[in-house]
Amino acid sequence: MPAPLGDIAHLGHVELLTPDLEGSVWFFTEILGLTETRREGDSVHLRTFDDYELTSIVVTGHTTSGLRRTALRASSPEALQRRVDAIEAAGGTGRWTEGSAGTGPMYLTTDPDGHEIGLYYESEWYEAPEHLAPGLKNQPQAKPRQGVGVRRLDHVNFLAADVEPNADWVEHTLGARPTEQIRLDTGRIAARWLTFNNKSYDLVYTEDWSGSSGRLHHIAFATDTREDILRAADLCLDNGVHIETGPHKHAIQQTFFLYVYEPGGNRIELCNPLTRLVLAPDWPLITWTQAERAKGQAWGLQTIESFHTHGTPPLDS
Amino acid sequence: MPAPLGDIAHLGHVELLTPDLEGSVWFFTEILGLTETRREGDSVHLRTFDDYELTSIVVTGHTTSGLRRTALRASSPEALQRRVDAIEAAGGTGRWTEGSAGTGPMYLTTDPDGHEIGLYYESEWYEAPEHLAPGLKNQPQAKPRQGVGVRRLDHVNFLAADVEPNADWVEHTLGARPTEQIRLDTGRIAARWLTFNNKSYDLVYTEDWSGSSGRLHHIAFATDTREDILRAADLCLDNGVHIETGPHKHAIQQTFFLYVYEPGGNRIELCNPLTRLVLAPDWPLITWTQAERAKGQAWGLQTIESFHTHGTPPLDS
Amino acid sequence: MPAPLGDIAHLGHVELLTPDLEGSVWFFTEILGLTETRREGDSVHLRTFDDYELTSIVVTGHTTSGLRRTALRASSPEALQRRVDAIEAAGGTGRWTEGSAGTGPMYLTTDPDGHEIGLYYESEWYEAPEHLAPGLKNQPQAKPRQGVGVRRLDHVNFLAADVEPNADWVEHTLGARPTEQIRLDTGRIAARWLTFNNKSYDLVYTEDWSGSSGRLHHIAFATDTREDILRAADLCLDNGVHIETGPHKHAIQQTFFLYVYEPGGNRIELCNPLTRLVLAPDWPLITWTQAERAKGQAWGLQTIESFHTHGTPPLDS
Amino acid sequence: MPAPLGDIAHLGHVELLTPDLEGSVWFFTEILGLTETRREGDSVHLRTFDDYELTSIVVTGHTTSGLRRTALRASSPEALQRRVDAIEAAGGTGRWTEGSAGTGPMYLTTDPDGHEIGLYYESEWYEAPEHLAPGLKNQPQAKPRQGVGVRRLDHVNFLAADVEPNADWVEHTLGARPTEQIRLDTGRIAARWLTFNNKSYDLVYTEDWSGSSGRLHHIAFATDTREDILRAADLCLDNGVHIETGPHKHAIQQTFFLYVYEPGGNRIELCNPLTRLVLAPDWPLITWTQAERAKGQAWGLQTIESFHTHGTPPLDS
Repeated sequence: MPAPLGDIAHLGHVELLTPDLEGSVWFFTEILGLTETRREGDSVHLRTFDDYELTSIVVTGHTTSGLRRTALRASSPEALQRRVDAIEAAGGTGRWTEGSAGTGPMYLTTDPDGHEIGLYYESEWYEAPEHLAPGLKNQPQAKPRQGVGVRRLDHVNFLAADVEPNADWVEHTLGARPTEQIRLDTGRIAARWLTFNNKSYDLVYTEDWSGSSGRLHHIAFATDTREDILRAADLCLDNGVHIETGPHKHAIQQTFFLYVYEPGGNRIELCNPLTRLVLAPDWPLITWTQAERAKGQAWGLQTIESFHTHGTPPLDS
Repeated sequence: MPAPLGDIAHLGHVELLTPDLEGSVWFFTEILGLTETRREGDSVHLRTFDDYELTSIVVTGHTTSGLRRTALRASSPEALQRRVDAIEAAGGTGRWTEGSAGTGPMYLTTDPDGHEIGLYYESEWYEAPEHLAPGLKNQPQAKPRQGVGVRRLDHVNFLAADVEPNADWVEHTLGARPTEQIRLDTGRIAARWLTFNNKSYDLVYTEDWSGSSGRLHHIAFATDTREDILRAADLCLDNGVHIETGPHKHAIQQTFFLYVYEPGGNRIELCNPLTRLVLAPDWPLITWTQAERAKGQAWGLQTIESFHTHGTPPLDS
Repeated sequence: MPAPLGDIAHLGHVELLTPDLEGSVWFFTEILGLTETRREGDSVHLRTFDDYELTSIVVTGHTTSGLRRTALRASSPEALQRRVDAIEAAGGTGRWTEGSAGTGPMYLTTDPDGHEIGLYYESEWYEAPEHLAPGLKNQPQAKPRQGVGVRRLDHVNFLAADVEPNADWVEHTLGARPTEQIRLDTGRIAARWLTFNNKSYDLVYTEDWSGSSGRLHHIAFATDTREDILRAADLCLDNGVHIETGPHKHAIQQTFFLYVYEPGGNRIELCNPLTRLVLAPDWPLITWTQAERAKGQAWGLQTIESFHTHGTPPLDS
Repeated sequence: MPAPLGDIAHLGHVELLTPDLEGSVWFFTEILGLTETRREGDSVHLRTFDDYELTSIVVTGHTTSGLRRTALRASSPEALQRRVDAIEAAGGTGRWTEGSAGTGPMYLTTDPDGHEIGLYYESEWYEAPEHLAPGLKNQPQAKPRQGVGVRRLDHVNFLAADVEPNADWVEHTLGARPTEQIRLDTGRIAARWLTFNNKSYDLVYTEDWSGSSGRLHHIAFATDTREDILRAADLCLDNGVHIETGPHKHAIQQTFFLYVYEPGGNRIELCNPLTRLVLAPDWPLITWTQAERAKGQAWGLQTIESFHTHGTPPLDS
């Protein structure tokens, strides 16, 4: 039985690994317009301008690329405890850690594929320093002058050796709602999109063609407008950031997208959902067939080959 | 004690009254791009292209303008019953009616100021006829070729003789969350914004300067982009639709807006929130002072006088 | 020696042939938002909302598709006569015809590849009927409520068996300025862009891979915004109009583009140049090499194969 | 008799005076996204990313604000000489100076109201240093990562004690074309817009309510999109730049606008004309009456009072 929706409020932050820390930080600050808030050892804390929490993403220098952690904020202390109980009732294990990145105590566990998931409730609200104070009191920080100025960390797309058990685990123990999926002719689920709230997705599982576990397809930042994404494409072009594909519109979820590789090699999506939300409490899971997927993206763009072959960390790392 | 958030899923539809039925229908179809789905007597059912339910708005010919009904969809049959019980426990009364506009049984009650509120759970999902079939299976209807093509009915702004008891009633019996408000120097609440989900507001109460009850400030439709609103302003200009104010950005809620009067006299807002959402489970109610409100809108536009004097129905009707 | 710039003011109108007259008219009116102004026999006259002349495009039912005529407006009667003299001095021939499509006398000739070119000066200014009257006196017609609402016919891209002599003819007899070109490693010019004014191009010659003469690559309409093009892509998707490629940004000329096939088979571009203009009086011809062209479009999109194989009329017609 | 159109190609650059040099440079670089290229004494040279010439604007520290010079590029050496001859034939005087700001010899004169006008033909083309190299060879410089990233200096709006003789002087000696004007009920011309090319205006004269001479109403920079202007409004809000009025759409010329005061006190417009151009060789001068002007801007915004009272330098300086 799926867990009740609502115990997990939203995606909190992620920790990304990079073999090129300064390059990655340059990309996130100068191109995406995130604000650096803290450095601790090899980790740099960065935030989008509309994140009410301290940290949107931690970038950590490492021998390779990839995703170290995905942190999810619970709706209340009780909701947090319910999710921990559910994980352990389902046979999972985890451990409580001191908070980091501005959060209180965090319960660390893994999904079946091995991606680290952190759950927490307590969180410090960001207070902008004078030079970053916003003009409006309902906004945590001034809109950045440099780069794209993405609004929020939007979603994480995990690669997994087997999509379905992972998506089921998120649905059944964390309380997510699956909104769309791809089912191959063999019956196998090639990808599934899940949400914790009225966004149409927060987490995605995509089949890892290599059979490997624990890897990352991409993380995504939401922009305010499609024009922000078109401007981002020009900034990437003029600053030597590799554009993989886009801008275009996904058929699945209808997201307007641009995929680039940050200097550390991780795939980053800039996404814009327009004002689309999933408000229906009984939204049915929409299934795309193999034939439908083969049609490419919404306006006819064929899905680029590297989209099915590039994940992080790379396989030989 | 506030009711738990989540029992009301979202704003369903409204019924609007108009002394100029054909003029109003022309406006909603030709300028806003809604689709007419049904006529019954003096009532015309209209829908936005991304509404999954049958009906976004019913426009009914009448001796005057104004709002007859605001329908809210519950999250489940149990949630619906909980809200009915809470209303009655708070001393309210209501009655069950046959569904209309594609809904199942609807519980009709009124807020303290006398606005009719309908609660329902069952709802028929829209199936587009061949000529309106969308290109993507996750969209209920083709994007309209004519007019603005607004995505959804977004919110209702009620006028009320006394804001606070009404906003409290919505919070405490329906389970909404207040996100922003204006507090005058006297301590009186001049307006309060409430939401049932991750949108930053679904219902608003604004003080009726005339002391009258049950009137409407405006209903709003969400567009996908700010560019849609700029195009809308041109369409209104070239088609003789009265623009009251905008386009501009509200300081409160940061909404990009355009206010026009439809031919029946009701104020209609076209609004765009960009990708802003309220995801924090512990979002604090933000209070704007009288002095802050006096600064005008976000980019400095002074609030137009008629914004404080025009409501529907007009006072002499 | 190039003719002096300025004798030809701008592209006036084109006549397009179609084997599906009603389908083509549906596309131009319902999808692009042109206004039908006249029908004469198998010819339908259509105009964009910001054309000051009567007609932007004549669509004529025919056994096949393709371009019948490209009409260019001279800057004055004297400028018109100078261009006719120059054509004849260069060995060309032509004939004067009664005006059509709202123009005065038109001199008809052909470029070396056989495309019919019409030159005229006198032109009737459009006066909008009451129901199409604009809100502003500096605009000829109300912005259309339906479809994209393209602003103007922007340019014509001719296929030619041999690009260079045609581009030279336009430069030397009509007085155009070449702004960009593609030069293959063999030295052969694969395409050249020319302008008569401060737009960066009005006419383009592209090599016809088939060696045929007189064919059309595409005609293009300018939209006011890139968002108009994104909306157009959705309208095409939902209305069954074939999208060939885009939206994306050309490296050459930096144009934001969408290519579709109208129901008669002709390729139509929707283009947006942002606010880019060629204002320098000594703008140098920019040459793209074969290697540079092979990189694809500005943001990395590979040029689609059909872009090099689809022209109208089709080869077997 | 008006001079022939075409001898002046376009607005080259302006020199602006400011009592707050560092504040002004901060605004132009950090908010508008111009690039500083040179400092000489109290003068800072700045350029927009798509200017092919070295300099778009020189900002000079001074005791007060205002405009020191407006430089116009001629189309050829012969065109330059023709304009100088015309000025002197009309009784004007001037002197040749060494070039500055990347231009060759410049002829300095004044319009009847006393604004300094510089005419030149020779001009150095900008070569971007490595770190500002663009991704495309048809663009002079990388799109800036910081600030709005305006494309070009677009126009200058002069205040003049008497509009008509100044506009006539520009038309008759420099060869501009008047495109729109405001005529008061008294017959007096309150403002006139003139262009040298296919833009709908390059220079504007507006009546100085104070009867003073030689002052500035504003200079304007063109953005690529209206979205750039909306983003600019947020950047100004969050960075304490005074927004005077907008964003909105002018009825006259249909320009989408935002007016702000740079820290030195000069009014700066960000403008976007969409893809509108004046291509007709016989475009008639459009006259707006006093009553039409009283209607406010295109979408109904009343013209703000300071628009008629703020000019630079201030009157008491």
